[in-house]
Amino acid sequence: MNTITLGQFSLVYNAFSFTFATMGAATLFLWLSRSQVGPAYRTAVTISGLVCAIACYHYFRIFESWNAAYGVADGVVTTTSVAFNDAYRYVDWLLTVPLLLIELVLVMRLSQAETMSKSLRLGFAAALMIILGYPGEIAADNGARALWGTLSAIPFLYIVYELFSGLGASIERQPEAVRGLVKQARLLTFASWGFYPIVYMIPYTSLGGGAVTTGIQIGYTIADIIAKAGVGVLVYIIAVRKTAAEAQTPVAAKAHA
Amino acid sequence: MNTITLGQFSLVYNAFSFTFATMGAATLFLWLSRSQVGPAYRTAVTISGLVCAIACYHYFRIFESWNAAYGVADGVVTTTSVAFNDAYRYVDWLLTVPLLLIELVLVMRLSQAETMSKSLRLGFAAALMIILGYPGEIAADNGARALWGTLSAIPFLYIVYELFSGLGASIERQPEAVRGLVKQARLLTFASWGFYPIVYMIPYTSLGGGAVTTGIQIGYTIADIIAKAGVGVLVYIIAVRKTAAEAQTPVAAKAHA
Repeated sequence: MNTITLGQFSLVYNAFSFTFATMGAATLFLWLSRSQVGPAYRTAVTISGLVCAIACYHYFRIFESWNAAYGVADGVVTTTSVAFNDAYRYVDWLLTVPLLLIELVLVMRLSQAETMSKSLRLGFAAALMIILGYPGEIAADNGARALWGTLSAIPFLYIVYELFSGLGASIERQPEAVRGLVKQARLLTFASWGFYPIVYMIPYTSLGGGAVTTGIQIGYTIADIIAKAGVGVLVYIIAVRKTAAEAQTPVAAKAHA
Repeated sequence: MNTITLGQFSLVYNAFSFTFATMGAATLFLWLSRSQVGPAYRTAVTISGLVCAIACYHYFRIFESWNAAYGVADGVVTTTSVAFNDAYRYVDWLLTVPLLLIELVLVMRLSQAETMSKSLRLGFAAALMIILGYPGEIAADNGARALWGTLSAIPFLYIVYELFSGLGASIERQPEAVRGLVKQARLLTFASWGFYPIVYMIPYTSLGGGAVTTGIQIGYTIADIIAKAGVGVLVYIIAVRKTAAEAQTPVAAKAHA
C-alpha cells in the first residue's frame, strides 16, 4: 500500500461517499419511476435501478475499506495493517456489467428470441471481460497487467462490435422520437467503458504511488457514475418516450417482450 | 480546528440532528404523496423527495463527523485528532443543486425540448457553481476564498438570470391558480441560495474562530432546509393544484413530458 497525502486521501474519501449517495439516489429514482413507463419497459427500468443498487452496496464497502486501510490523525495519513480491497470493484462489475448491457437490449424491445440471444451473448462476453481483467489488476508487475488487460480487451472489442454492428440495425427500427437517444445511450456506454482501460493503464505512467492510487480510484468512480447512473437515467427517458409514442400508435404492442 | 464553547458545540449538534430528521420527514412525505398528483407531475415530486433523501444521508454523515471532531467531557469541549469534514456539504450540493433546478423546471411542465435544454443548462451551471466554490471553502486565507467565491458567482448569476428571464415567459403561461405559487417557489429558491454566499463570507468578519465555525454551520443548515424541504413542499403543492386545474380543463395533456 502506497503512502498518500491528506489531499489525495480526502479526495478519494469524498468521491466514494458522493458515489454511494449518487448510486442510492439513482436506484430510488429509477424504482420509484417504474410506474411512469409502460409494462413492456418496466423490466429495463427495474434492472437499471438494480445496477445502481448493487453499485451503491459496493461503494459502501469500498468506502469502509478505504477508511480501514488508512489512518488519519492531526492531518497526517498513515497506512494501517489492513489492505485496501480493490476486488470489490471486480465483483461489482461481474454483476453489473452484464446487467448494463441487458438493460440496453431490453429498452429496445426486440423480439423475444433476439432479446434472449443478445442478452446471453453480451452478458457472457461482459462477464468474461471482467474475469480476465482481474488477474492483471492485482498483478505486481506491469507485464502481467498488460497481458491480462490485452486478453480482457478481446471480449470488450466483441461487445463494441455487437453494440455498433449487431444492434445498429435494431436501432434503425426504433421509433424516430427515441432513435437519437438510443444512440446516445450506446455512445455513453461505449465512452464510459472506454474510460476503464485508460484508468487500468495508469500504473504504466511515471506517476508516483499515491497519485496512481488516487487516479485509479477517481477514474473508476467517474466511469461508474456515468456508465451506471447516467446510462440508467437515459434508459428511463427512452422508456418514457417509447411509452408515450406507443400510446399514440399502439402498433408495436405485438413485439411485447 | 478552532476551539468552540459547549453552547456552540451543542447548538450545531442539535441543528444537525434536527436537519437530518427534517430531511428524512420531507423525503417520506413527498414520496408517500406521489400518488396525489397526476402522472405528469410525479417526476417533479419524486426528484423533490430525492433531493431531501440525499441531504438526509449527508446530514447523517455531517453529524457523525461533527461528533468525531470534538470530544465533550464534564462540560468542556476539546478537539480530537480527526478533522470535521465540511466537504460533505459540497458533494451534497453537487448532486442536489442541479436536481433542485430540475424539479422547478419539471413542475412547470414545459415542452419536452424545453424541459431537456433548460434542465441541462441549469444543471450544468449549478454543478459548475459548486465545483468553483469548493476550493475557496477549504482555502486557508481569505484572498483565495474571495477569488473562488467570485468565480463561483458567475454561474450563480447566470442561474438567477435564467430563473427570472428565461423562465419568466414560461411562468406567465402557467395556469392562473398556480402562477403566484411558481413565482414563490422561484423566489424561495433565489432567497435561500442568496443565503449561501452570505454564509460563505462569514470568515471575512471580525468574529472569532468558534463563532465563525458555528455561524457557517447554522447558516448553511437553515439555507439547506429552506432550499430543499421548503421548495420541495412548494413544488408538491403546485403539482397538486395543477393536477386539479387540468382535471377541469384537460387541454394541456398533449404537452405530457
